[in-house]
Amino acid sequence: MAPRAATLLEMSDSVAGYTTYIDLIHDAIGDKKIISTGMMKEVDRVEMAIAEALKGTTCSLVSGGDSGIYAMAGLVFEMCEKKGLTLVRHGEACPENSDGTCLEIEVVPGIPALAAGASLVGAPLTHDFAVISLSDLLTPWEKIEKRISAAASADFVIAIYNPKSKKRDWQLARARDLIMEHRKGDTPVGVVTSAMREQQKISVTTLEKMDESHVDMQTILLVGNEASVPYLDFMYTPRGYSKKYEI
Amino acid sequence: MAPRAATLLEMSDSVAGYTTYIDLIHDAIGDKKIISTGMMKEVDRVEMAIAEALKGTTCSLVSGGDSGIYAMAGLVFEMCEKKGLTLVRHGEACPENSDGTCLEIEVVPGIPALAAGASLVGAPLTHDFAVISLSDLLTPWEKIEKRISAAASADFVIAIYNPKSKKRDWQLARARDLIMEHRKGDTPVGVVTSAMREQQKISVTTLEKMDESHVDMQTILLVGNEASVPYLDFMYTPRGYSKKYEI
Repeated sequence: MAPRAATLLEMSDSVAGYTTYIDLIHDAIGDKKIISTGMMKEVDRVEMAIAEALKGTTCSLVSGGDSGIYAMAGLVFEMCEKKGLTLVRHGEACPENSDGTCLEIEVVPGIPALAAGASLVGAPLTHDFAVISLSDLLTPWEKIEKRISAAASADFVIAIYNPKSKKRDWQLARARDLIMEHRKGDTPVGVVTSAMREQQKISVTTLEKMDESHVDMQTILLVGNEASVPYLDFMYTPRGYSKKYEI
Repeated sequence: MAPRAATLLEMSDSVAGYTTYIDLIHDAIGDKKIISTGMMKEVDRVEMAIAEALKGTTCSLVSGGDSGIYAMAGLVFEMCEKKGLTLVRHGEACPENSDGTCLEIEVVPGIPALAAGASLVGAPLTHDFAVISLSDLLTPWEKIEKRISAAASADFVIAIYNPKSKKRDWQLARARDLIMEHRKGDTPVGVVTSAMREQQKISVTTLEKMDESHVDMQTILLVGNEASVPYLDFMYTPRGYSKKYEI
């Protein structure tokens, strides 16, 4: 957790979040009020967090990784807009006579799963990359396919979020097939599950050998571009220095 | 700086980095040996850091943002491979009789500029996104154009790194033109310069009104997708909850 997140958590009166994340930061929460809801209850959670803040108290809404990457920050802005609230940056003054309709907000950046995962398999993201979630719960699958093909054809390194869940079991194999229309079977793929947590698993494989058995909702995959190489237990993507300099 | 980075810095005998970053963490370095080189001297810097580590000491090589995103981690792996060195993860044992040819490495993830920049303009990255550097020093411009067009056509939010430098002044306007072949002129664009530093500047504009005057090498741009919206002084990208739930 970045120091700024710890500082704001300390300043908060209440903490809202998915139960798993609340448990992970239990020590930092202490005896603050906890607003905890299960998975898929994102709207309820944000609703309750906004209600707490409108009481004039400070509420932290926590996410895993970075709060702005496939996480809750977007929904906070969207719901505040729908409610006709005015948002100002933390530390800025609300307009006069705006009591009850104006909130201060600070989005605290964190270490996203793509950066944590990348660091564990080496350095796959040292060149242009695309980040794609395979969850079609809120996005039409056709749009996801279009993005996979566009990213593969333009030689982006590809970070894949949400590759699989109990109900979604075929999307990753389909994504792999789409990528292999543009990329060789021996392209290195980093597979990281539960990055930086107790159950952490790391492997570097290839597109064609990619074993799905270790893949779940906590997994992030890092598919190399045409230049990415495997190296011992790692993979990396050259930035291009060797074309320009003696290295 | 994430706690893990601070811990490893503390454990290090020497610290290598671009002078600007070395200055930013001067207090954390204390009286450790400093290996500092100017911009464009990346190869020299990594060469010296590897030499320090091969002496049996611990050397930290520091980057701004995340060390694996357009930063030095990739070059470390590449140069170690060229030198025929064996790398093992920090804490793992080197093979027997590998003295002088084996190093322990840990890549420490950080808060990338894209996450810091995004947090300052709201929540632009809550859906699939592509990350593209406009620097053509090490990458052919044609490849960069291909990536911009692919990302724009597949409706990725686009994070743009290295939009402009003293010698590169036309690439951003060209990138904007390419994106506008697929996206409306009123698409919101977040512009953040020197995120989280003293000279920080934040604005939310649109593709057609995008003013380049505040853009330099310290700027990151966040170009919305078709669904992204401006909201007061912010912008955000809906994840899609409103299509599925009452919000």
